[in-house]
Amino acid sequence: MGALAHLLDFAGWDRARVESLLETARMMEEVLERPMKKVPALKGFTVATVFFEPSTRTKISFELAARRMSADVVGFSGAGSSLAKGESFKDTLLTLQAMALDAYVIRAPVAGMAHQAARWLKGAVVNAGDGRRAHPTQALLDAYTLLEELESLEGKKIAIVGDVAHSRVARSNAELLPLLGAEVWAAGPVGLLPERLPGARLTTDLDEALSGADAVMVLRLQRERMDEGALPSLREYVAEYQVTRQRLDRAKPGAPLLHPGPMNRDVELEGALADGPRSRVERQVRAGEAVRMAVLYHLLVGRAA
Amino acid sequence: MGALAHLLDFAGWDRARVESLLETARMMEEVLERPMKKVPALKGFTVATVFFEPSTRTKISFELAARRMSADVVGFSGAGSSLAKGESFKDTLLTLQAMALDAYVIRAPVAGMAHQAARWLKGAVVNAGDGRRAHPTQALLDAYTLLEELESLEGKKIAIVGDVAHSRVARSNAELLPLLGAEVWAAGPVGLLPERLPGARLTTDLDEALSGADAVMVLRLQRERMDEGALPSLREYVAEYQVTRQRLDRAKPGAPLLHPGPMNRDVELEGALADGPRSRVERQVRAGEAVRMAVLYHLLVGRAA
Amino acid sequence: MGALAHLLDFAGWDRARVESLLETARMMEEVLERPMKKVPALKGFTVATVFFEPSTRTKISFELAARRMSADVVGFSGAGSSLAKGESFKDTLLTLQAMALDAYVIRAPVAGMAHQAARWLKGAVVNAGDGRRAHPTQALLDAYTLLEELESLEGKKIAIVGDVAHSRVARSNAELLPLLGAEVWAAGPVGLLPERLPGARLTTDLDEALSGADAVMVLRLQRERMDEGALPSLREYVAEYQVTRQRLDRAKPGAPLLHPGPMNRDVELEGALADGPRSRVERQVRAGEAVRMAVLYHLLVGRAA
Repeated sequence: MGALAHLLDFAGWDRARVESLLETARMMEEVLERPMKKVPALKGFTVATVFFEPSTRTKISFELAARRMSADVVGFSGAGSSLAKGESFKDTLLTLQAMALDAYVIRAPVAGMAHQAARWLKGAVVNAGDGRRAHPTQALLDAYTLLEELESLEGKKIAIVGDVAHSRVARSNAELLPLLGAEVWAAGPVGLLPERLPGARLTTDLDEALSGADAVMVLRLQRERMDEGALPSLREYVAEYQVTRQRLDRAKPGAPLLHPGPMNRDVELEGALADGPRSRVERQVRAGEAVRMAVLYHLLVGRAA
Repeated sequence: MGALAHLLDFAGWDRARVESLLETARMMEEVLERPMKKVPALKGFTVATVFFEPSTRTKISFELAARRMSADVVGFSGAGSSLAKGESFKDTLLTLQAMALDAYVIRAPVAGMAHQAARWLKGAVVNAGDGRRAHPTQALLDAYTLLEELESLEGKKIAIVGDVAHSRVARSNAELLPLLGAEVWAAGPVGLLPERLPGARLTTDLDEALSGADAVMVLRLQRERMDEGALPSLREYVAEYQVTRQRLDRAKPGAPLLHPGPMNRDVELEGALADGPRSRVERQVRAGEAVRMAVLYHLLVGRAA
Repeated sequence: MGALAHLLDFAGWDRARVESLLETARMMEEVLERPMKKVPALKGFTVATVFFEPSTRTKISFELAARRMSADVVGFSGAGSSLAKGESFKDTLLTLQAMALDAYVIRAPVAGMAHQAARWLKGAVVNAGDGRRAHPTQALLDAYTLLEELESLEGKKIAIVGDVAHSRVARSNAELLPLLGAEVWAAGPVGLLPERLPGARLTTDLDEALSGADAVMVLRLQRERMDEGALPSLREYVAEYQVTRQRLDRAKPGAPLLHPGPMNRDVELEGALADGPRSRVERQVRAGEAVRMAVLYHLLVGRAA
């Protein structure tokens, strides 16, 4: 495959590209273990974080990824910006481009905004989440974390549980993990399942999804995105879909537990599990930084894969 | 002339100083064309952006200008600051000064705030827009862009069109461009013209201003600053003052089209013109970065002109 | 004493540790007097400012302190963060920790949050103000400023005046200054005095506190933190407790005047005094930067004291 121009979703990706990127991420994580966690790889490059939706943790993760490679970072947020003065989304991006920026990390409330930006801009675009559609760096960090635990994802069963309908994390994982040979199951109440999720088997039967799973990924209940009536009641959700210690016993012994964060403890999962030996939640955050360093490096310095 | 201490407006400037600054800007733009867009010129200096009015694009432009020369940047905004706790504007600035900052880029809603700051502070002050009064780096980037097109501004007719009354951009251009030999015309409806605009000829006749113009600068309709009744109706404004392809034909063939941004497409100008061959809108943004690098460099490292 | 792990308050501190830290601060201030105010001491380290309460000046002071030693800085604020999406304070901090950050500068509205953070986090925690409890870097910069004036604090009388009840600055100074031999008096109206203030003598008699004082520290009237009825009326407060030129005459001749800022001029002190020869307000701000550099340096590079 040719060099990576943007990271929007995994359309057109093959296993070799995923593996090459994760290999770079492993090298980047070594940098994060040094006392001096900084390399000059992207010195002189400038990365813009363009966040039209608030998200401190993802923004900081990208910022750190860029700075640890000595890039400069500028932040553009919707509030108080020229958009508020009547400028179009396209003109805002073209203005940033004219400032000789090199990469744009875009978080948008509407699906497809990052794709559209990639058509307009000369620089590299990273989709940091667009509506319900995609959040590819999250899926990459999940793959990174899973591979560390399971060595290979070939034939492995990965259960994604909870609010699947609103989850760009679920969508991106269902796209990515099968490229590495995994079998993805997605489970949730009928009102929180999408009609279809390419790459995954859907079920309302939580036990079916967890049964024999090699790893379990719990999603955040995104109450802020829910239409009235999608969810019968929080109490009912907790009773039937909360991932508890008991339910987790249906998965393979020692199956790791992932959550993209932020967690609603004792809603989508039993709070104590988050601190337990199976939790990889903090591991995922660290992996996220390494993966984002790798993504920016591949996009800016280039690397055929 | 002596070394530049502040950039507040163009009072006391002569042609040699303008040309020296633009010459430095041209050198700075070469830096922006390199793969590694960073020089150590301002290493160890700290620039504060002090924005009492929201403006993401100007703020980012200054931030980038400073960082590309290896300066550190700290941002101070009115909201959530000590001003909200009852501190005076002067005490806020003196506090920043005590932190050993070197330059202050100030955007303020009230005319004269940057001038006042320059009297209080030991460091260099750059006026990044104060009320309707001045926005000198915008005029410098306009001059830079115009000179690139026209080679010399001697005897050239520059038409500034639209909401002149509320425009610090118009005021600063009317001050600056005549220093380079240009003849400035400013046109708009009677409710959007100031009583006087030193350096420019005022007219309500758009065609008179455009006729034979060497370049056309369209201003944003600043509806958020307008008093009731200043403007008859948006429809009327568009009908009589929107810069259309047809109206632009009155200018010299190929006359470049400038806009300080952000644009209201299809309000003050026909949207398609912004993307057409005459548009220099993106060019202006790039020039802005080079000009701001030059301004900070002249102020901090010094340079008699 | 062992190496400093966190700076939360002065429990367990001895005079040697204070003096060692202030000695480092003096070296840091030399850096601030150079044309190039930057040293590579903390290159590769990352400092997070985690501000759950707005405070631009303290935040900028820490940011600058970190950057002048070549550390990277990321900012996390409560608004728009994952906390707003239901994440707990602890999970937010553990997420930041997983990003391989080295130090956390925490400003919180509730007493004890920084202490709790220090129990959870592996990195160094600096308390940048927690409720009414402590603001140790402010007390250190006050000590630094006082020592510059008075050479030694042994047996010196320091009067702290005003809204003592709401003041973490008063609390931290009452903890710190006696370690250096000072005798601390705190004066204010009965509704603005705490029941007890360890390390200080409390009095409602302003003249008693000022009489023969070697230095006077005026506190900001924190009207935003006051319960109804704590203060009889602003006019009464000004009449009886405002530090005026006349009242200041009760202190030793030339006794320096400190204020942690931001000041309400003509409320807690006569406005003209702030600009007068006794005022050390700007001196304190500069000292604050040097002290914060020293604190971060001791915490991150380590130094037994």
